[in-house]
Amino acid sequence: MRSLVRNSVVVFMLLVVLGWIPLCSGRPDPSQRESLMREEAFRRTGGGVLLTQEELDLNTKVQKLKAQEMVLPEFPPTMHFFKATPFIQRSPIFSLLKRMPKGAALHVHDFSMVDMEWVVKNVTYRENCYVCFTDDQSVRFLFSFGQPKPLPHCSSWSLLKTLRSKIANSTALDNSFIRNLTLVTKDPDSAYPNQDIVWKKFEQAFLVVYGLVTYAPVFKDYFYEALREFYTDNVMYIEMRALLPETYELDGRRNDRAWSLQACQDVLRQFMREHADFFGARIIFTVHRGINDTEAIKAVEEAMKLHREFPEIMAGFDFVGREDAGRPLWYFREALSLPEERGVTLPYFFHAGETNYEGTEVDQNVLDALLFNTTRIGHGFAMVHHPLAKELSRKMNVAVEVCPISNQVLKLVSDLRNHPAAVLMSEGHPLVISSDDPAIFGASGLSYDFYEAFMAFGGMNSHLGTLKELSMNSIRYSSLSPEMKEKAFAIWQKKWDKFVSESL
Amino acid sequence: MRSLVRNSVVVFMLLVVLGWIPLCSGRPDPSQRESLMREEAFRRTGGGVLLTQEELDLNTKVQKLKAQEMVLPEFPPTMHFFKATPFIQRSPIFSLLKRMPKGAALHVHDFSMVDMEWVVKNVTYRENCYVCFTDDQSVRFLFSFGQPKPLPHCSSWSLLKTLRSKIANSTALDNSFIRNLTLVTKDPDSAYPNQDIVWKKFEQAFLVVYGLVTYAPVFKDYFYEALREFYTDNVMYIEMRALLPETYELDGRRNDRAWSLQACQDVLRQFMREHADFFGARIIFTVHRGINDTEAIKAVEEAMKLHREFPEIMAGFDFVGREDAGRPLWYFREALSLPEERGVTLPYFFHAGETNYEGTEVDQNVLDALLFNTTRIGHGFAMVHHPLAKELSRKMNVAVEVCPISNQVLKLVSDLRNHPAAVLMSEGHPLVISSDDPAIFGASGLSYDFYEAFMAFGGMNSHLGTLKELSMNSIRYSSLSPEMKEKAFAIWQKKWDKFVSESL
Ligand SMILES: [Zn+2]
Ligand SMILES: [Zn+2]
Repeated sequence: MRSLVRNSVVVFMLLVVLGWIPLCSGRPDPSQRESLMREEAFRRTGGGVLLTQEELDLNTKVQKLKAQEMVLPEFPPTMHFFKATPFIQRSPIFSLLKRMPKGAALHVHDFSMVDMEWVVKNVTYRENCYVCFTDDQSVRFLFSFGQPKPLPHCSSWSLLKTLRSKIANSTALDNSFIRNLTLVTKDPDSAYPNQDIVWKKFEQAFLVVYGLVTYAPVFKDYFYEALREFYTDNVMYIEMRALLPETYELDGRRNDRAWSLQACQDVLRQFMREHADFFGARIIFTVHRGINDTEAIKAVEEAMKLHREFPEIMAGFDFVGREDAGRPLWYFREALSLPEERGVTLPYFFHAGETNYEGTEVDQNVLDALLFNTTRIGHGFAMVHHPLAKELSRKMNVAVEVCPISNQVLKLVSDLRNHPAAVLMSEGHPLVISSDDPAIFGASGLSYDFYEAFMAFGGMNSHLGTLKELSMNSIRYSSLSPEMKEKAFAIWQKKWDKFVSESL
Repeated sequence: MRSLVRNSVVVFMLLVVLGWIPLCSGRPDPSQRESLMREEAFRRTGGGVLLTQEELDLNTKVQKLKAQEMVLPEFPPTMHFFKATPFIQRSPIFSLLKRMPKGAALHVHDFSMVDMEWVVKNVTYRENCYVCFTDDQSVRFLFSFGQPKPLPHCSSWSLLKTLRSKIANSTALDNSFIRNLTLVTKDPDSAYPNQDIVWKKFEQAFLVVYGLVTYAPVFKDYFYEALREFYTDNVMYIEMRALLPETYELDGRRNDRAWSLQACQDVLRQFMREHADFFGARIIFTVHRGINDTEAIKAVEEAMKLHREFPEIMAGFDFVGREDAGRPLWYFREALSLPEERGVTLPYFFHAGETNYEGTEVDQNVLDALLFNTTRIGHGFAMVHHPLAKELSRKMNVAVEVCPISNQVLKLVSDLRNHPAAVLMSEGHPLVISSDDPAIFGASGLSYDFYEAFMAFGGMNSHLGTLKELSMNSIRYSSLSPEMKEKAFAIWQKKWDKFVSESL
């Protein structure tokens, strides 16, 4: 059936090109029109997915809900996420997506996975937590036995327990901490007039959380809580980009990167013992793209070492930080060529094309990531402006990790219907949906990003088949071995069938 | 040289697909990278244009200016046009674009081509001009010998001359008229929170200007002034979508459509006698897409009649009005099939895909316009979400008329770097730049839209070759006969060469 449709379209297009069908027939043949429409629907992400009768019934229900929501005066994908959040939370589609098994989260960062309320209400209430207030209205945290040495541009350290006991209302203080740990604000357009300003606050938030999560006991608990929150959001597997920083103990002692990786592995094993249907997590070691070539060589060497020593949990290597402000991949070509030269495998998972400055060195990252044989492309926002890179990505089966809320909050696009992923999806380009830094954006897990993707990309043309393919893509394009993928798909299928029958 | 580049890329891609180049070589070959980058540059609009040494020198100058402008904190294509206007007016690139011969304006509407200040300062100051003030803070105008009959929802008519003599400051009144005739406002985001509201004000502005421009003497002067303003902006030829309404005389007598068309033809001939290097204008007869099928049949019949009687000036037929609120092209299929059934040629120039509601009936217009053998596509904003329609458009050589400022003001996209035309241009899709309704948007001619297109689409990747191709495209994709195009190109070339040598 499908190939019949495709063939008839191919023949039709051929005849048009050859001029045998002049297309000035005045009255288009309705059946020809139908077949063109079917072919276009078929090409879309999820367009070729076969649905069971149960799935078709659920689809009817979903599409009806979607149509109702699309005509509301406040259609969430057209609004800034901070303003859209309450509308999304009331959406029946969102409730459904929360329950839907979403497969894997393939693009999330270590220190923005856990609800910042948990961080404040749990972590900052622990013993020995100090706070100081910076000159630029931010805060820093540190756990310590005694009074820590003062930081530059920061007030002297106060023990939080003492501070809280002195003030009447801890809630106001806690809320101010949350404001420093996230970008969330009532009027984002005024607060963040341009990319420079929003990125400054974004990077600031990482500095705030850093002192909390690099405290060794918190590091473990934080990772456990991250797994728990994503698991609760019906995510069964995670590939986490992680800085794997040194951690510290109360007495100032420091643990190295291997300790952090070992800690992740231990916590993960414990979590999996307690949650039999959780499939696991792998780590992509990341360094900041502000480093120079010598530092990059050291980083790649360390990545190779970690990859050799922790083959189960270590997936590969990537750079983080704002692309527009950092060095392009081509600058790091010596370092990135090292593994191959040494006959070592080190998979890359490059952020590339998270920019709308076309024709710059950084804009070239999309093509270069592919030339460096990246396994996936983080964001690839600029890819639609690079037709050759797009073709290569498709032919090499390199999926794009699309993070709609992140791109909106960091001011690459406002109305998400204009997100380039809508173009990629209309062509059935390999891609997955992820959430990047949900905690800093006031989101959580994957459901918010799935909501935006489902409502914004394709409009009424995306359906349950789209959701099914997006969910399956996250396993298909993971770094798991073929055997592991098969196991993961088996677990996923059970969850999916249960979800469908319970949603009817 | 070019075919060498292309072949090497094709062979390279083939080897990748076949798996013979695994692309995990670690160290990409710099010359291979270069050739991929060259191929991508070649595919872009203007990428294949050969530049003379003089043009290359001018390009160096232009690109330097562009690079300086792109890093300014206030980069105009990222801002709403109403806020960007003063920045654009100060831009040296804009000065250059004003002087550049831009070829033809292929998508402009009859009653929004002339600066509204001219309309107020010239037209409303004529004898016998009456004004009334509507319940919803707008105005209506009418020329009449005596006191006209009152309009519903409007104050009684005042003779403007008398009114002006009674008030101290006419400027405030004139400015309020201009505010009613345009969408321009200091805070467009607050004034126009959504598409419904901005379209309401937009359609309202047409009602305001309507009473002025359908007064027979003004009708002719307005068209003359339109030609003059576009000519002054270095546009040499125009295809104007026109409602060709009945016009009226002071005594209430009415002139029919043929009168309007004859008036246009007379004014055009006069203008061309006075401006030897102006190439002319043709008219696309338009009706509102709110009509029903019976009315559409009458409209198409009238279009055929006008096309037969005025073959020189009549180019074809189109629908106008907001697509999302109107009937889809497929609804009008009976009417649109009439010419073919009667063995008559009536070229179509459909607005199609001026929407971001995907998967709706209206969203289908892009494909249907092509199936009805449209000569060009107006806006085609949704085309990038319709890969098959996109292929058809390319293969049928149907150009997309891109109107960046219109799409931004009417809230399809905010940051123009995300405009779908940037995707189309990266693929070298046939397209032209136009201005839709410049007077209502506070723009004029084509230069503002050329500025936005040049700065937003392609970033540093678009260059003088891009501008040259865009300008030539406007003649290439016009409705002129091959012989006329040849003549137009000859005139254009002289203007272009003069522009280049004078800009060095
Ligand atoms: Zn990221
Ligand atoms: Zn238009």
